[in-house]
Amino acid sequence: MTQTTRRLVLDDTAQDLLFRKAFTADRFTGDPVDDDTVRAVHDLVRDGPTAFNQQPLRILLLRSAAGRARLVAHLSRSNREKTLKAPLTALLAVDNEFHRRLPEQFPQFPGAMDLFTRDPAFRVRSALLNGTLQAAYFIIGIRAAGLAAGPMSGFDEDGVNREFFPDGRRSVLFAVNIGRPVRDARPRGPRLAYDEIRTTL
Amino acid sequence: MTQTTRRLVLDDTAQDLLFRKAFTADRFTGDPVDDDTVRAVHDLVRDGPTAFNQQPLRILLLRSAAGRARLVAHLSRSNREKTLKAPLTALLAVDNEFHRRLPEQFPQFPGAMDLFTRDPAFRVRSALLNGTLQAAYFIIGIRAAGLAAGPMSGFDEDGVNREFFPDGRRSVLFAVNIGRPVRDARPRGPRLAYDEIRTTL
Repeated sequence: MTQTTRRLVLDDTAQDLLFRKAFTADRFTGDPVDDDTVRAVHDLVRDGPTAFNQQPLRILLLRSAAGRARLVAHLSRSNREKTLKAPLTALLAVDNEFHRRLPEQFPQFPGAMDLFTRDPAFRVRSALLNGTLQAAYFIIGIRAAGLAAGPMSGFDEDGVNREFFPDGRRSVLFAVNIGRPVRDARPRGPRLAYDEIRTTL
Repeated sequence: MTQTTRRLVLDDTAQDLLFRKAFTADRFTGDPVDDDTVRAVHDLVRDGPTAFNQQPLRILLLRSAAGRARLVAHLSRSNREKTLKAPLTALLAVDNEFHRRLPEQFPQFPGAMDLFTRDPAFRVRSALLNGTLQAAYFIIGIRAAGLAAGPMSGFDEDGVNREFFPDGRRSVLFAVNIGRPVRDARPRGPRLAYDEIRTTL
């Protein structure tokens, strides 16, 4: 680590908190995650970069037992119990009509909204890409609050969308359990080395 | 900021470096960005969470003038000059055959590879979502190295794919200029407030 770590400016404590010692959590302590904490996470990461300053990400917090149960019905068996037990579960979704805000969000390109109005497929793809960038910043933000995230995907997205977003304007990206983690004894899965993912021209 | 900032564990210096004072850069100093720096960025963020521990992200570094020119031909006019002048430009792409590595990357679910083999549309969407999560972690990592990123999208993706990935296995997500930034005098674009993007059930 010595050779490459010296190339970073971020201090070791922050490196550990956000990446090196952070982990995807399945189990959490009983400590609640209050709304001011989620607000602080959003306040930290809200300026993360997106194309045309678009901001498709929307967050639906499932705090009530009834709300949580509506999600769990659509999850795979392996994700149900941990979601029912998590202090907080957030649905990260995108607003497919995000482009309506572009005249105020990106005034330097007045034609941006029309571009997305004319091409709905481009708009949906842009919401997906930029909303997912924002979702990643949000996951990093959860870690910045000293908490752990347990993102879940691969569930019945159509079912979740019908359940929570019946008017079709929003589409779910991920569900994320949030809380103070109980250390997991499982080793981290293997990751590709730099030389396997980088080519140079 | 006081009320919510106290909810974060990440120290103020790191908050500023990664988010609050970071900005998308259009102009850079002449300082080079060497390969050990990109390696250090990848080493920091490589463990960022993805579904099934999949790792679709691939990075093509455009270091040669010839390589850079091949990209610039596909960019919008406003992105050309800044890309030619940037110390480094990276194409962030996904490997649409990422699932072949799942037996080693996610051995706890031996059926994962078959799931993606049977359903190519699900596989491409998964590469897009998880590769974009990884791209976001990489952008944060660039900032952790004290550098700035200038991500670009909305270019001719089909043209870039034909130019750089003619066999169809990889698909471009974003192009990112990387370097030590020259401070931009433009104000940051407005961002939605927490109460505009969060609902609770």
